[in-house]
Amino acid sequence: MWDVADQLKAMLVFAEHRYYGESLPFGNKSFRDSRHLNFLTSEQALADFAVLIKHLKKTIPGAKNQPVIAIGGSYGGMLAAWFRMKYPHIVVGALAASAPIWHFGNLVPCGVFMETVTKDFKRGGPNCSETIRSSWDAINRFSRTGAGLRWLSEALDLCTALTNAQDVQRLKAWLSETWINLAMVDYPYECDFLQPLPAWPIKVVCQYLKNPSVSDAQLLQNIFQALNVYYNYSGQASCLNISETTTSNLGTQGWSYQACTEMIMPFCTNGIDDMFEPHAWNLREFSDDCFKQWSVRPRPAWIITMYGGKNISSHTNIIFSNGELDPWSGGGVTKDITDTLVAITIPDGAHHLDLRARNAFDPTTVLLARSLEVKHMKQWIRNFYASLRKKH
Amino acid sequence: MWDVADQLKAMLVFAEHRYYGESLPFGNKSFRDSRHLNFLTSEQALADFAVLIKHLKKTIPGAKNQPVIAIGGSYGGMLAAWFRMKYPHIVVGALAASAPIWHFGNLVPCGVFMETVTKDFKRGGPNCSETIRSSWDAINRFSRTGAGLRWLSEALDLCTALTNAQDVQRLKAWLSETWINLAMVDYPYECDFLQPLPAWPIKVVCQYLKNPSVSDAQLLQNIFQALNVYYNYSGQASCLNISETTTSNLGTQGWSYQACTEMIMPFCTNGIDDMFEPHAWNLREFSDDCFKQWSVRPRPAWIITMYGGKNISSHTNIIFSNGELDPWSGGGVTKDITDTLVAITIPDGAHHLDLRARNAFDPTTVLLARSLEVKHMKQWIRNFYASLRKKH
Repeated sequence: MWDVADQLKAMLVFAEHRYYGESLPFGNKSFRDSRHLNFLTSEQALADFAVLIKHLKKTIPGAKNQPVIAIGGSYGGMLAAWFRMKYPHIVVGALAASAPIWHFGNLVPCGVFMETVTKDFKRGGPNCSETIRSSWDAINRFSRTGAGLRWLSEALDLCTALTNAQDVQRLKAWLSETWINLAMVDYPYECDFLQPLPAWPIKVVCQYLKNPSVSDAQLLQNIFQALNVYYNYSGQASCLNISETTTSNLGTQGWSYQACTEMIMPFCTNGIDDMFEPHAWNLREFSDDCFKQWSVRPRPAWIITMYGGKNISSHTNIIFSNGELDPWSGGGVTKDITDTLVAITIPDGAHHLDLRARNAFDPTTVLLARSLEVKHMKQWIRNFYASLRKKH
Repeated sequence: MWDVADQLKAMLVFAEHRYYGESLPFGNKSFRDSRHLNFLTSEQALADFAVLIKHLKKTIPGAKNQPVIAIGGSYGGMLAAWFRMKYPHIVVGALAASAPIWHFGNLVPCGVFMETVTKDFKRGGPNCSETIRSSWDAINRFSRTGAGLRWLSEALDLCTALTNAQDVQRLKAWLSETWINLAMVDYPYECDFLQPLPAWPIKVVCQYLKNPSVSDAQLLQNIFQALNVYYNYSGQASCLNISETTTSNLGTQGWSYQACTEMIMPFCTNGIDDMFEPHAWNLREFSDDCFKQWSVRPRPAWIITMYGGKNISSHTNIIFSNGELDPWSGGGVTKDITDTLVAITIPDGAHHLDLRARNAFDPTTVLLARSLEVKHMKQWIRNFYASLRKKH
């Protein structure tokens, strides 16, 4: 976006979402209880952005009559799209990159996310997804005895040894999240988004995962090699910590609360169309977990009521871009809805690759996507000035 | 709207706004303090309507795939327009009758409201507005002495005698509100909206207000006769009560709080373009009063940030209807914005006359307005079904 800002002679504003980073409305009490968390909603965040833009236009010399475009990736992409829907008088358009605005209710099948993760590992190398699929049972077999747990803890070089069934659940959840994260950041060049990683990291990971039919011990030692690509590319890690999957602080507390109130995204696996252990989506269980953690219960229908679900054709000037490698693309808009609600798909793109800085290793498909995006933006800006002229 | 529902074979739903009527979220504690009032906003009301419509569609047999149109008058008209703007996936269009969506900030001059009231009284009979303009000084002169206050209290048959300057202020505010209300309900036939009234009540009132140059005593006795048209058309009133101007409960508490938080409508008079005592709009004073009454301070810019002010051209399918007699028309949309954001003006109409039931005395202009409104609604419905067919 820095590159695009240059082209459009635009100012670039990164607005921090309330309850993330340093934007804590009640300081270190912000996450204390639901009374303090009550102001953490997507609607309130959009209102913040509306007030912020008006403030910037008022106070920055020359900004007053300039058109504004909302840009975001992931949850930020949803916010960008929703912002254009709800505040079309404030932004002339929105680029919603990798925005899974349909990953709610039953707008898309709950398995679509994990199927894309699996596809990425299939593409990463022969037998790669099959090897991961085999790993769950291998872990389960080791987990039956104390000796097995000790062996597992050592083989995977875990910082804290596994001692019970709950630990094993956590281990498997951590592994799943690792594969998911790799799918999200399967970028064509070395970079550091969730973790420092080599180019096309899944391909690198899959070099260790070529054989699903070896012994359980061998298979899990191979998994360990694969994990090291993700957790120890720098070579600095002394052990693997199953309580975290990313180095940077993405504000997991805030998202956890939002996922328990408004942002209810159903996920499921069946172990057939995907490489994970089967797990049905269970709203009741999810709701109980939310109640335990935050004393709130989810409202799974609300986001669709508020933002329209699939009935959004009356809006205009939104680009929905999606990388086909990105597991979130399954919940995104990947087909044009109207002439001005357009989908751009990037076959070789992972999670919002189009928003990243220009790179020598960018595939042609992302270059094309970016130039299309700029073309649309220029059109919105032209229309904005044309309608201004019409008024005067 | 009953008549229109019949024509369109539609179901008519009257949804009560939270904090009005019986919809009290905290029972009789609802107005206790700002903690209990915190949930009284237009946004929350719109969200209620969204949830309600989804609920009705889900639970009423046959309703599921029917198009919905939002209809409202006055504040309800603003809500109807805003509902279409914010939830275009839920309603195919909106009829916003006498909706002063621009009576905020400095979108329209603050004097426009009282100027229209004055115009109505000018139209009501010769010297009528001049007589009312003269009444303020006559009251002021009487108010200088105790004897004068006693005379005033008796001449106007007040239930509670005036004793001090504050009472006189209240008297004048009550008188102003009476003239305002008459302007709002200057309907062409006998009816009972704010009070039981004859047809064209301003014309009746003005029969008593033909001479601004009589003595103060005579002038105020004439004002008393005029007041009786409004407060004693039934002949049942034993005295006039300056603490109320309407018989029905319109939920003044809720509105008073909303007027102190979101719905800041600037009003002013100059005594030249209108028939009232000059009074500038004073946000500071207004804010202090709000703080005294509700412990809150107004956010005068918010409604414009939220609902777009005059920049609403990206929306579609809203009819803004306004009666030219209606003082609220000055803050309304009285010119087409686009092909589908249309203005309908009713030269002989007062406050949302078009929403009232058919009447033998309806002027042709309101009949025309209603038939235009139905024409637009039918078009929205046709478009809705056409887009459904396109999908399948």
